[in-house]
Amino acid sequence: PSLGDPAAGCWRWQAEVFEKAGVNVSVVFGQLSEEAARQMRSRGKSLKASADGKLPFCAMGVSSVIHPKNPHVPTMHFNYRYFEIEEADGTKQWWFGGGTDLTPTYLNEEDAVHFHKTLKEACDKHDPKLYPKYKKWCDDYFFIKHRGERRGIGGIFFDDVDSPSKEEVFQFVQSCAKAIVPCYIPIVKKHCHDSFTPEEKQWQQLRRGRYVEFNLIYDRGTKFGLLTPGSRIESILMSLPLTARWEYMHTPPESSREAEILEVLRNPKDWVH
Amino acid sequence: PSLGDPAAGCWRWQAEVFEKAGVNVSVVFGQLSEEAARQMRSRGKSLKASADGKLPFCAMGVSSVIHPKNPHVPTMHFNYRYFEIEEADGTKQWWFGGGTDLTPTYLNEEDAVHFHKTLKEACDKHDPKLYPKYKKWCDDYFFIKHRGERRGIGGIFFDDVDSPSKEEVFQFVQSCAKAIVPCYIPIVKKHCHDSFTPEEKQWQQLRRGRYVEFNLIYDRGTKFGLLTPGSRIESILMSLPLTARWEYMHTPPESSREAEILEVLRNPKDWVH
Repeated sequence: PSLGDPAAGCWRWQAEVFEKAGVNVSVVFGQLSEEAARQMRSRGKSLKASADGKLPFCAMGVSSVIHPKNPHVPTMHFNYRYFEIEEADGTKQWWFGGGTDLTPTYLNEEDAVHFHKTLKEACDKHDPKLYPKYKKWCDDYFFIKHRGERRGIGGIFFDDVDSPSKEEVFQFVQSCAKAIVPCYIPIVKKHCHDSFTPEEKQWQQLRRGRYVEFNLIYDRGTKFGLLTPGSRIESILMSLPLTARWEYMHTPPESSREAEILEVLRNPKDWVH
Repeated sequence: PSLGDPAAGCWRWQAEVFEKAGVNVSVVFGQLSEEAARQMRSRGKSLKASADGKLPFCAMGVSSVIHPKNPHVPTMHFNYRYFEIEEADGTKQWWFGGGTDLTPTYLNEEDAVHFHKTLKEACDKHDPKLYPKYKKWCDDYFFIKHRGERRGIGGIFFDDVDSPSKEEVFQFVQSCAKAIVPCYIPIVKKHCHDSFTPEEKQWQQLRRGRYVEFNLIYDRGTKFGLLTPGSRIESILMSLPLTARWEYMHTPPESSREAEILEVLRNPKDWVH
């Protein structure tokens, strides 16, 4: 099946196509923990707490991670969220954040172009400057520093977006959200019946190990969740794959398909112009 | 075989008994990174850097993690290390740290007592106050805060130990090191031929997931390693199991053997008095 063939459907997806997939809808409010406030200040936010150090906040978002069984179907993640903090003098700070990104086990250039092109079109409706900026932000954000690799081939990512106006940013975020199904599902349909070898499945498991490393060590949402007292751990760690693997000193052979994807994870490419 | 029967040997251990095992010998020196210095100061160290902010350090240690295949053979970890920092005025700070701890998939009380008793005897030769203190430190250190569980049934752990004298602490650390083989290997020999079910193997994999969570989120050695520029990532992450598993909302049935070990991980017990 090709990208344009929606009839190539996969039935009983949850059971047959996806190994682990979930959707989180989250509404949290309370007092910002000191550590969470410290992390926000470290990204340049000035947060004036009241005398007792309290910073009431409210955050809401929807997120999803989909880990397919077939190593030729990439993992997809998105998260769109709205954050509000009330400072000591009553001023409210608000911002939107989020993004959609793809983590393939093997590189398929046609899929990469389709994914990025669909996201670019959603961004371009609002401002042609957004896609290039948020594409780079995504490459920078999903960086596994100690490996020198990105988690996947990116997509878009943004945070702390509070201009031009709340209504306009909300419209933009809605366009991003509407692009999720058309950017991902055609890729799933195209590959969910691809045959694969045990070696390909094993490479997928090693890449899932990297996914775990990123989420537990670097991911801002996971960190914020783990720092929030009373947060629901199972929801936060839902993003972890069902299984993962770590082999000492695993290095794929030169010119292999495994080396091909590693090259792109080390040096991100522009998929659309 | 029982704990006292050394003839019940397991041959070709690496291949047949252990799924992943390694020994790291590490000697690092250079300038302490700002983040590493900050973490050390947060544990109460006063580190006076020179005008250019530099803090020369030297650290050396030996560590090992052994993940067996059989879910009835526990994972064992030890690490013993020596740290030295030179402050701006030329004063040298030094300390020893380390410990040995056991992570069983299922609780075996006889094994737990043997493990802790052997460590206690090694400590008692130096000072009877050491074992109770370092046993508790171990329970506190290997705490997976977001789960409310310890990584395993503990053992001993200590850090920043710089008294009564360098020679005496070194003697103590050597006693701890000499206790590693007698505290662990009899347990391996006793269980390496135990039969197990696929369900028991799966529970082991879920516990390995927790092992990954602790090491990537909380472990001081892993954090220090990831923060040290030019550090050898494969050595640092050698501690991760070959495979791990995360299931959404997995809860073992009441009164099961899985619930039994969870209870001990949530409420550590005293195994020897």
